[in-house]
Amino acid sequence: MKRYRKYDFPVDQVRRFLEPGPIVLVSSAFKGERNVMTLGWHTVLAFSPSLVGTMISSGNHSFELIRRSRQCVINLPGPDLLDTVVGIGNCSGAQVDKFARFGLDTTAASEVQAPLLAQCPASFECRLHDAGQVKRHGFFIWEVVKAHVAKAPKRPKTVHYRGDGQFMLSGEEVSRRRLFKPEML
Amino acid sequence: MKRYRKYDFPVDQVRRFLEPGPIVLVSSAFKGERNVMTLGWHTVLAFSPSLVGTMISSGNHSFELIRRSRQCVINLPGPDLLDTVVGIGNCSGAQVDKFARFGLDTTAASEVQAPLLAQCPASFECRLHDAGQVKRHGFFIWEVVKAHVAKAPKRPKTVHYRGDGQFMLSGEEVSRRRLFKPEML
Repeated sequence: MKRYRKYDFPVDQVRRFLEPGPIVLVSSAFKGERNVMTLGWHTVLAFSPSLVGTMISSGNHSFELIRRSRQCVINLPGPDLLDTVVGIGNCSGAQVDKFARFGLDTTAASEVQAPLLAQCPASFECRLHDAGQVKRHGFFIWEVVKAHVAKAPKRPKTVHYRGDGQFMLSGEEVSRRRLFKPEML
Repeated sequence: MKRYRKYDFPVDQVRRFLEPGPIVLVSSAFKGERNVMTLGWHTVLAFSPSLVGTMISSGNHSFELIRRSRQCVINLPGPDLLDTVVGIGNCSGAQVDKFARFGLDTTAASEVQAPLLAQCPASFECRLHDAGQVKRHGFFIWEVVKAHVAKAPKRPKTVHYRGDGQFMLSGEEVSRRRLFKPEML
């Protein structure tokens, strides 16, 4: 699996990668323990501060690491990681070291303890912004405090989940810039 | 543009259409006024009740119709509606009747006042479930109370937004059912 060298990227532009709705890998760390989970339930919420919401069920082993550390990294896997994405979602960090089992290479984040995944072309360091809906809905509102993105490909291919073991891979890119009012871009 | 005949669909399976992160058209109605807006910031939140969250900025003309009626319909447009999606997102219901301008055919919903869009292959009737994050983040938590889906295509093509006038169209469908534990499907 390819490793990406990533560069600093404007946090107010993470929608470029997250708004299309890809499956992401969320890494976490708390008091010497770390884990990674597969997540499909997320949304962009604001540009500046750069806010992203994630729904994380308390049944996940990552839940307590994330809730207690108040940090995570949202990593963007490509189709070459599809079987890894499924594997990570089908085992628990309570039983296995997923980083070892799936051969995940990590690098250190700069603002949080959770690791960046080297095999993902984009990684977003997050700090908890609002925990108001965590207890009721498992909904964490994050501020992306640092973004790391590979220079190529400019628009990495992504995988999207439909449930029932079925994935959609991102397809054709098309521009409609000419139809937008300048202030809407 | 094609019109779809739609049929009752299990509300706990709307993830099949929404989890991949498509752009949706949200229709609304309140006291004789109606509108439709383009929306890319949404996430599935729960299966049963079937909960979906949407971030809707108060700057949108639809915001007050949606907030006051506590209802909406989330419609799923295909790539044949891409220019319409952009057009709807680049004008305001305060100035124009978007249904007339864009030739949108509507049919009546059964549980809410907002209309279903006939040119969309799926429409989800929503009632407000939790308004706790509306004031702070524009985040509405909806219960999908009735789902309408065309029988074909089974997995309609969708459009996904990256910002900056750039769209990604849904691509190849791939199954990894064989890699899932039965309880994870």
